[in-house]
Amino acid sequence: MKVIIDLCVVPMGVGVSVGKYVAECQKVLQDAGLEYQVHAYGTNIEGDWDEVFAAVKRCHERVHAMGAPRITTSIKVGTRTDREQSMQDKIDSVTETLA
Amino acid sequence: MKVIIDLCVVPMGVGVSVGKYVAECQKVLQDAGLEYQVHAYGTNIEGDWDEVFAAVKRCHERVHAMGAPRITTSIKVGTRTDREQSMQDKIDSVTETLA
Amino acid sequence: MKVIIDLCVVPMGVGVSVGKYVAECQKVLQDAGLEYQVHAYGTNIEGDWDEVFAAVKRCHERVHAMGAPRITTSIKVGTRTDREQSMQDKIDSVTETLA
Amino acid sequence: MKVIIDLCVVPMGVGVSVGKYVAECQKVLQDAGLEYQVHAYGTNIEGDWDEVFAAVKRCHERVHAMGAPRITTSIKVGTRTDREQSMQDKIDSVTETLA
Repeated sequence: MKVIIDLCVVPMGVGVSVGKYVAECQKVLQDAGLEYQVHAYGTNIEGDWDEVFAAVKRCHERVHAMGAPRITTSIKVGTRTDREQSMQDKIDSVTETLA
Repeated sequence: MKVIIDLCVVPMGVGVSVGKYVAECQKVLQDAGLEYQVHAYGTNIEGDWDEVFAAVKRCHERVHAMGAPRITTSIKVGTRTDREQSMQDKIDSVTETLA
Repeated sequence: MKVIIDLCVVPMGVGVSVGKYVAECQKVLQDAGLEYQVHAYGTNIEGDWDEVFAAVKRCHERVHAMGAPRITTSIKVGTRTDREQSMQDKIDSVTETLA
Repeated sequence: MKVIIDLCVVPMGVGVSVGKYVAECQKVLQDAGLEYQVHAYGTNIEGDWDEVFAAVKRCHERVHAMGAPRITTSIKVGTRTDREQSMQDKIDSVTETLA
């Protein structure tokens, strides 16, 4: 099953600056060979369900290993059976309607 | 890794009444033997990371099989390494502070 | 416009124990006279759109005033024009389907 | 109070294709003169708390007016008192750590 998710990992108990933890999660996604796109409040990721969620789990493991005692993460998860749709398709669908 | 999640599955393309799809997800959680608590805008689930996310995947599969062509799901995911904490502990922590 | 929201306020930069900040948000909701229900990963709130979002803003103000330098909050927001529905109606709809 | 939010409006009861509703929300943000950035699973918006949330409310009103009987929206809301931070600052913080 193909999935598009939006991932926002929030480490707690490590102060207000969490950029290095988010950067580590980018490395996890790169190592996993997943397609992803960073935005100001999370990261869009596209791929096979199992591979995507394995990467999400690894993000939690890695961020804990870096010293964060607590993590709260928000995920939006989209699947569809009617047709294939990529992250870019979703953006194009809105842009074309506006044009 | 132990996890507490909050799950909200939204089937699209099946009209406004989605109670039967949400009910089907409850059955998935029951069959998985997971501890869970329904609220007005989602379901709290507690358990081992892999078992919990296997159940989330099965919810998507089941809701698609029931006829929903598209699903958008919101998940909050909490893990911590500093101490054990159950769903009830989290509620108690707030209640005791208020008392 | 009537709204049902699910609110999860996460103070950052104040350590791992955030129960007292969540408790303060409960007081804000009580003072606002809003109907709400706490669960393990947030709080369901029901009421008029403007009153509910005024309370959400006050939660941010209050939590910052308590010393949290950064807050990241998740909100789910439900509105409908086809019929009235309370938080309890939503839970009943699922429970009745299961019965 | 300055805020950065991530907004994802999901109209229900109008089928699987929701691009035109999302496009309408972009127009609301443009008309409000707010800074925003579309991604594949939502829209980042930056501005004064009251202006941003007035726009979110208008999105719900407009999408209902277009015929959607039910809407479920996800919002992430970030505020901080320690320093100014724009949407671009957040992305730069991660990119620089990776470099």
